[in-house]
Amino acid sequence: MPNRTTQNESSAALLLIDVINHFEYPDSDKLLTEALPVAPRIAELKRRARATGLPVIYVNDNFGQWRSDASKVLAYCLRPDAPSTCFVEQLRPENEDYFVLKPMHSGFYQTPLDLLLKHLGVTTLILSGIATNSCIQYTAHDAKMRNFQIFVPPDCSAARTREEHEQAIRHMQSMASADITPSPDLRLETLAGEPNQQ
Amino acid sequence: MPNRTTQNESSAALLLIDVINHFEYPDSDKLLTEALPVAPRIAELKRRARATGLPVIYVNDNFGQWRSDASKVLAYCLRPDAPSTCFVEQLRPENEDYFVLKPMHSGFYQTPLDLLLKHLGVTTLILSGIATNSCIQYTAHDAKMRNFQIFVPPDCSAARTREEHEQAIRHMQSMASADITPSPDLRLETLAGEPNQQ
Amino acid sequence: MPNRTTQNESSAALLLIDVINHFEYPDSDKLLTEALPVAPRIAELKRRARATGLPVIYVNDNFGQWRSDASKVLAYCLRPDAPSTCFVEQLRPENEDYFVLKPMHSGFYQTPLDLLLKHLGVTTLILSGIATNSCIQYTAHDAKMRNFQIFVPPDCSAARTREEHEQAIRHMQSMASADITPSPDLRLETLAGEPNQQ
Amino acid sequence: MPNRTTQNESSAALLLIDVINHFEYPDSDKLLTEALPVAPRIAELKRRARATGLPVIYVNDNFGQWRSDASKVLAYCLRPDAPSTCFVEQLRPENEDYFVLKPMHSGFYQTPLDLLLKHLGVTTLILSGIATNSCIQYTAHDAKMRNFQIFVPPDCSAARTREEHEQAIRHMQSMASADITPSPDLRLETLAGEPNQQ
Repeated sequence: MPNRTTQNESSAALLLIDVINHFEYPDSDKLLTEALPVAPRIAELKRRARATGLPVIYVNDNFGQWRSDASKVLAYCLRPDAPSTCFVEQLRPENEDYFVLKPMHSGFYQTPLDLLLKHLGVTTLILSGIATNSCIQYTAHDAKMRNFQIFVPPDCSAARTREEHEQAIRHMQSMASADITPSPDLRLETLAGEPNQQ
Repeated sequence: MPNRTTQNESSAALLLIDVINHFEYPDSDKLLTEALPVAPRIAELKRRARATGLPVIYVNDNFGQWRSDASKVLAYCLRPDAPSTCFVEQLRPENEDYFVLKPMHSGFYQTPLDLLLKHLGVTTLILSGIATNSCIQYTAHDAKMRNFQIFVPPDCSAARTREEHEQAIRHMQSMASADITPSPDLRLETLAGEPNQQ
Repeated sequence: MPNRTTQNESSAALLLIDVINHFEYPDSDKLLTEALPVAPRIAELKRRARATGLPVIYVNDNFGQWRSDASKVLAYCLRPDAPSTCFVEQLRPENEDYFVLKPMHSGFYQTPLDLLLKHLGVTTLILSGIATNSCIQYTAHDAKMRNFQIFVPPDCSAARTREEHEQAIRHMQSMASADITPSPDLRLETLAGEPNQQ
Repeated sequence: MPNRTTQNESSAALLLIDVINHFEYPDSDKLLTEALPVAPRIAELKRRARATGLPVIYVNDNFGQWRSDASKVLAYCLRPDAPSTCFVEQLRPENEDYFVLKPMHSGFYQTPLDLLLKHLGVTTLILSGIATNSCIQYTAHDAKMRNFQIFVPPDCSAARTREEHEQAIRHMQSMASADITPSPDLRLETLAGEPNQQ
C-alpha cells in the first residue's frame, strides 16, 4: 500500500478546522451566518496553497462517530436541503488533501496531527475555519506549545459574533505569537520555503 | 448527526489490533502463516463479544494514508488475489463496530482510543490481533499505564514465530498484569458486568 | 517509601498556577502590579481549601531548569530584595501541598497532572494564579477537553491589564464552561462532596 | 533565572532509568542482586558520556510523592543501612545532570522528557538502568514511536533474572530497532556528533 506523505517540500501547511460541519448545535445559526462569507476566502486560500505546494490538512470534529470514516461525516453535512450544505460544498476535500478527525476542540488532542506534521516536515501552520474562539484558539494554543509558527488570517475564520472573533484573533496574536496578516497578503511561497526551525 | 457511543453498558471491550492488514512488509509472510489459524478464533471471540454486549473496537494501522478513511484501507487489504484477503475477509468490521486508526505501534499513541474508552465507560480490555510482540505488546504497555485491566487470550494473537508469540504473552502476563486465559474460557458476561474500577 | 496520595476524599482540588514566579520576563512588572492585590485572596482561598479537605496543587513553570527541583525555583523567587518576593512569600507551598512542574503554558502538557488528579479522584478544578489569559486559560482549555468541571474565581487571578483579565474570564465562562463565582461565594464543602462525574 | 539547557551540541543523550531506587517492592531483592554488578558499569558509562559532552538525564520514578522534589527521593534511597544505598551511592546525580520524574513505567508518559530532548536537540538515546524488561522496555517502545535512535548496552541494565534481561534485550533489538553494543564498545564521540535525523 503506497505511503502517501513522502513528496512534501513545504515547511508550511494550511489547516481547515471544522469546515465539514453540520451546524447542529446551540447558536450554530449565528455561527453559520458569520461563516458563510468566509467560505469563499478559505476556498481561495486553499486554491493558492495547493498551487504553491503547501499541504492542505482538514482537521475536523468526528461528531461522535468514532468510525474513522471522514466520508460519512462529509455526506451528512452535504445532505440536500441541509443548512450546512451551502457552506460545506465550497470546501469539499480533494483527493490530495489530508484529513485528521479530532474528538475534541484542539486539533492536537488525541489525534495524529502532530505526527503527520512531523512526517511532512511542517513547522508553520496557517489556521482557518470555525470557530475562531473555540477550536481554532484551542488548536493555536496547542500549536504554540509545540513550537509551531502560527498564522491566523482574520478573514478566513469566524465565530458566533464579530466581537468574539476579533477578541480571539487579538488573543492569539498576543498569547500564541500568531501572525494575523489577512489572507490576500500572505506570501505563501515565502512561507513554504522557509527552512524548518522546529 | 446522531452520536453513536451512548448505549454501552459493558465495562469491557474487545480490541482487534491490526487485523485489517496488507501483510506487505518484511517477514509478513511468516506472520501471515502464523496468523491464519488465529483468524477464526478472533472471529468467534468477536461473535461472542457482540452477543454479550461488549463493544468491539478495531484499532488499526493507517498504513501511512492519513486520510481518516478506514474503508480505503479495508478495500486495499481485500483486493482479489491479495495474500491478505483470506485473513482479512474473516474479520471484516461490521456497522456497529468502532474503528480507530493508529499511526504507530500502540493503539493509544496519537489516537482517540483513550477518549473513546472513557466515553464507553470501559475499564477492561481484551487484546487480540497481530503481532503479539509488536503492536499488541506496545498497546498492552500503554493500557497498563492507563490503569486498564488487560486480557490477552493467547489463541487470539500471533507473531512471526511461536517463540516470539509465547515470550510476548509471558511478558504481558508478568509486566502488564495481563490475564492470559484462552478465549474459550473467558467469561465475557462476567467481564462485561464488572463495576468500573478505573 | 510511603505513598503520599491516598487519603483524599474530595472530588475538587485547588490549583495555584505559576504563583512561584520570578517576574523576570517582558511586561512582568505590569503583571506583578495586577497580581499583588490578588495574592491575599488566593492565600485565603487556599486556607479555606485546606480546612475543607480539598487537595492544593501548585502547577508551576519549571523556568527552564529541568531538574525536578521545585525548592530551587522557590528559593530563587524568594531572594531578598527580589521584586517577586512580596508576592511569592504570601503563597509558599506547605508540606501537604502537591507540586507539579510544567514546562510550557498548560498545566497538563507534558506533566503528570492528569494522572495525579485521577489518583486523587478529582473531577472539579478551581483555577487560580497568573496569568488569566495565558497559563490559566491554556490550562482551562486542557481541563475542559479532559471533562473536568472548572471554576475560575475572577478575584483569584490576574493578567497584565484588567481588560485582558476580564476577556479571559468571559472566554473561559463561554468556551470552557467555567463557573466564575467569586472566591468568597464558593461553597467549597459542596464542591468537595460532589460525586465523581468524570 | 538562567535557563539551563542551552549549550548542548550532542545529538545523543544518556538516560539513567530508575537508578535512584528504594528497592522496596515485590522481588526487588532479586533485582538488587542482579543490579549491583551493573552499577559500576553505568557509572563508568556516565563518566565517559560527560567527558564526551553527552547530556546525562536521570529518568526516575516519583514513587508516589508528587512533590517534584527529586532530592527527597534521593535522600530516602541513600538512608544509612538501607539496602538500596550501596547501589544508589554509585550513581548519585551531579549538578549538571538533568532529572525527570516519571509517574509510571515509561519515561515519556506524563513527563516533560520529550520536550527536554527537543530542547537539547537530541535524537539518539542510550538507555541504562533498571529493570530491563519493565521501565527500560516501556521507555524504549515510546522512544521508538517518537523516532529516536536507540542504544541499549546489555551490560548497563538488569532485571530480576538473567533470562528476563536477555529476552528484553533481544525484544528491543528486534521490535524497537535497538542497537545492543556493549558499553565499552560504544563510540560516544561518533554518537554525539551525528547529525540530527529526527
